Amino acid sequence: MKRVGIVLSGCGVYDGAEIHEAVLTLLAVDRAGAQAVCFAPDKPQFHVVNHLTGEVTGENRNILVESARITRGNILPLSQADASQLDALIVPGGFGAAKNLSDFATKGAACRVDESLALLTQEIYKQNKPIGFICIAPALLPKLLGESVRVTIGNDIDTAECIEEMGGTHIVCPVDDIVVDAQHKVVTTPAYMLANSISEAAKGIDKLVERVLGFTE
Amino acid sequence: MKRVGIVLSGCGVYDGAEIHEAVLTLLAVDRAGAQAVCFAPDKPQFHVVNHLTGEVTGENRNILVESARITRGNILPLSQADASQLDALIVPGGFGAAKNLSDFATKGAACRVDESLALLTQEIYKQNKPIGFICIAPALLPKLLGESVRVTIGNDIDTAECIEEMGGTHIVCPVDDIVVDAQHKVVTTPAYMLANSISEAAKGIDKLVERVLGFTE
Repeated sequence: MKRVGIVLSGCGVYDGAEIHEAVLTLLAVDRAGAQAVCFAPDKPQFHVVNHLTGEVTGENRNILVESARITRGNILPLSQADASQLDALIVPGGFGAAKNLSDFATKGAACRVDESLALLTQEIYKQNKPIGFICIAPALLPKLLGESVRVTIGNDIDTAECIEEMGGTHIVCPVDDIVVDAQHKVVTTPAYMLANSISEAAKGIDKLVERVLGFTE
Repeated sequence: MKRVGIVLSGCGVYDGAEIHEAVLTLLAVDRAGAQAVCFAPDKPQFHVVNHLTGEVTGENRNILVESARITRGNILPLSQADASQLDALIVPGGFGAAKNLSDFATKGAACRVDESLALLTQEIYKQNKPIGFICIAPALLPKLLGESVRVTIGNDIDTAECIEEMGGTHIVCPVDDIVVDAQHKVVTTPAYMLANSISEAAKGIDKLVERVLGFTE
């Protein structure tokens, strides 16, 4: 059974992992007969957002503990991830990718990425295993890989320019499709960067998971 | 476009709505071309559980605010739900159904159900509209409807006995199937009362949503 590492960044689109994207990823991986092995950084969230009002609250929440809500408790600290035990890596989006897995939301092209995520992604890449990043998460790939990787975050011009500034190549892509960089075995899809409904996001995520697992054959 | 009321009870299996069940419901409703209209009670959760350790924390969280994480902010207070504006009602499971929408988790057959949920469910029923309850939520239906409704929560004997004690009829059902009480237009499925994986839960939930929407034709 193929083992797919999935890195979460909290629980909720505005301060963590986008819940629909995370669940749709788990569903597609399970339906393909692969095993999801979930990880998240064991550190505080950048902040907590009230998802009803959009306002920042004064609360403190831990990324790993909140991510565990999405996985029904089945999750490990990201620092314990071992690329040699995985066949592929997938990172769903949500602001958590840009606030907790990195500081892209505030620093843009000057962002720093979580060290455990960088180590894991680089090791997966060195081992010639496939990588799938969803929604805003692909913006981290040029920094993570240090390569001119071809990725999509949909069609947002400012984010696309940031990606190019960091050394990546941005490809405009509709919500129901994926961009495949076969040389680097990197697959990306816009999901909620463009999706107006959960079934729209599901189309791209289903394709992404299928293509990522295809690279493991 | 059919409008399906979906009542959530927080965000996370141990203290709120089961996230996979909620997202799978939203996905099935959207794929069927219907509109999900989400609600949750605007009141404090019974408690907050650390989903990594299973321990109760000292935090206070609001059911509506946490449920908004699952719906990307698109949710209304349950007290504002108007049955005449809906074509059907679906309630996903998770301990939130037994701790926040009722006190079934601690009181069993002597439980009380949230008043707004009772009003909405009874009005939907009086208007001859279909009702779908998932996982542990069906245990509330005998109290909610005051009828000898046929429901399933899978095969858990203690819970089945509680349902019978409250005046319901419990039918054993596998994870990938549904129990249909055509007289009362009530559909139920075990989901994570029995599921060992998200794709198992999805099979029953997809059938439930299809059958509930079938009753609206």
